[in-house]
Amino acid sequence: MNATLASLTNHQVRLAARPVGLPQAGDWQHTTEPVAAPVEGGLLVKTLMLSLDPAMRGWMNEGKSYIPPVGIGDVMRAGGIGVVIASNHPNFAVGDTVSGSLGVQEYATFQADQAKRAGIVKIDLRVGSASQWLNVLGMPGMTAYFGLLDVGQPRVGDTVVVSGAAGAVGQTVGQLAKIKGCRVVGIAGGPAKCRWVVDELGFDACIDYKAGSVKEGLKTHCPDGVDVYFDNVGGEILDAVLARLKRKARIVICGAISQYNTTAPVQGPKNYLSLLVNRARMEGMVVFDYADRYHVAVAEMGAYLRDGRMKSREDVVEGGVAAFPDTLLKLFAGENFGKLVLKVADA
Amino acid sequence: MNATLASLTNHQVRLAARPVGLPQAGDWQHTTEPVAAPVEGGLLVKTLMLSLDPAMRGWMNEGKSYIPPVGIGDVMRAGGIGVVIASNHPNFAVGDTVSGSLGVQEYATFQADQAKRAGIVKIDLRVGSASQWLNVLGMPGMTAYFGLLDVGQPRVGDTVVVSGAAGAVGQTVGQLAKIKGCRVVGIAGGPAKCRWVVDELGFDACIDYKAGSVKEGLKTHCPDGVDVYFDNVGGEILDAVLARLKRKARIVICGAISQYNTTAPVQGPKNYLSLLVNRARMEGMVVFDYADRYHVAVAEMGAYLRDGRMKSREDVVEGGVAAFPDTLLKLFAGENFGKLVLKVADA
Repeated sequence: MNATLASLTNHQVRLAARPVGLPQAGDWQHTTEPVAAPVEGGLLVKTLMLSLDPAMRGWMNEGKSYIPPVGIGDVMRAGGIGVVIASNHPNFAVGDTVSGSLGVQEYATFQADQAKRAGIVKIDLRVGSASQWLNVLGMPGMTAYFGLLDVGQPRVGDTVVVSGAAGAVGQTVGQLAKIKGCRVVGIAGGPAKCRWVVDELGFDACIDYKAGSVKEGLKTHCPDGVDVYFDNVGGEILDAVLARLKRKARIVICGAISQYNTTAPVQGPKNYLSLLVNRARMEGMVVFDYADRYHVAVAEMGAYLRDGRMKSREDVVEGGVAAFPDTLLKLFAGENFGKLVLKVADA
Repeated sequence: MNATLASLTNHQVRLAARPVGLPQAGDWQHTTEPVAAPVEGGLLVKTLMLSLDPAMRGWMNEGKSYIPPVGIGDVMRAGGIGVVIASNHPNFAVGDTVSGSLGVQEYATFQADQAKRAGIVKIDLRVGSASQWLNVLGMPGMTAYFGLLDVGQPRVGDTVVVSGAAGAVGQTVGQLAKIKGCRVVGIAGGPAKCRWVVDELGFDACIDYKAGSVKEGLKTHCPDGVDVYFDNVGGEILDAVLARLKRKARIVICGAISQYNTTAPVQGPKNYLSLLVNRARMEGMVVFDYADRYHVAVAEMGAYLRDGRMKSREDVVEGGVAAFPDTLLKLFAGENFGKLVLKVADA
């Protein structure tokens, strides 16, 4: 490592305590340390932007899940886009743009096979912008693609409902369902988001859950019922959709943001017996299972981005890693409009 | 109709009011009327025995379900076995034993195409006894067969858990899963039922939910988790199993007897996000969807009955149709041991 790199300071955000309910300032620790030099086979990445995801709340909890929890004192886990500024790794050169699990820090050093475990891969900025690589071409896009197509199995003419419709996953689910010939009804909070998914993204309708009854909205916009429901929120909205399923409907359980910060027990879907009455199914998915097919989805969605059939919106917050704790709260307040991204540095 | 038939009196049990919680005496009306003569294309059946099913509770409620509710003032719907005592129908002769929707009454007259709509079919008493035709060879057996095999999709070596294990559906689900090469753990109430399913039916283990924690029982008997859960009960037990799912587990939602008589809202499964973590699914089934394949299941299960690999137990209550209301309560108190059947008359 040259003298310039050795003088760099790495600002980090670490998990200080397991939150109860919404994460508080005291659950975080802001640290600085010198940048670690990449040794043989290693790699040093400068973080450009970080992805903020509802799933982060789950990673902060103790206990068994689809991924181990972030340890107390560890740098908070986060996907991001960065640029390689030093490399002893045969596959990466200085100047390469990469995506992967960088963590909430300004610089990420990966020794030996750590880069592989962190899923560090080169990305092609001709396919999409850096922020699109965190959105349609990144985890939210992959989640939308495989959750909708593999688990939801929509058919031409199906009525597809998606909650969190203006969020990172929801916007892509809805657009993809339209491309596949479905009728799409979104559920989102506030008139601006609802207008956007209808006017800009081409959804057939959007129900503003803050403005009135979702149950009534579903009655109006899904008069014949729901074939596929892509659930990002859980809670009351899941129950409202369960009450309007069609025969053989499929519910994709992708997330439950309404339940992540509650200190009460999770609200189970009391209308689950609608699955019986309608011979319907509810199935969970985790995007990592589809890693060996990401390239297929990236190729297809990249083409949609280029030909204009797919739009993407990112809500980019400035402020560097220090702004991470407050930015995360924006997500749980439903204040983000599009994929929430934290800008850490210029390229 | 000859003079003897014309003199018969038909005792019936009718739905007088929609129950709130457990059905009360006042929810029923006991009526008598002369037996109606079967005209051209019609059929008169003498009821021998009636099936008592948890699903009956749902049929008594107003509202949309997989089958229309029983109307106030109507003879209560019930499947049964009977003998044809008069026929103008080309497919049935006096003396034929039949099964189908006879209703809670001593005689059922079907005019024109009513027999078809009531699913009246001849049964062969060489394949199984009359009570077995209400059990393994009847609706509970068909439910077990298609629910387990089509929806649950067990593979050799899978751990299959079934609740209501000593009930009509549960006993067959467990035995069938054993025949298909699975490890089977039942959940039932009381030591006698648990001993029976292990010692007589060959289940690998049985958890007595009345004696202790189902959660602990599952930990002991399903140390590696659950691949298939066949749910007849809902409530706390469904939640306990959700907490122990294996990757890609399948939950068959067949019923929820714990919730049928509650006046509180249905208890939604608060552990449903285990579906996400484990990429698992929960799917409802209604046996009538498989009607065109019943003959396949009857042939297979009849063979198991004959070669002794499948046992069946029926809990036969004497007392005629007047005993129907009290016998139904036995079901909801979990007092039946095996398939609950009401004997109405001798053949």
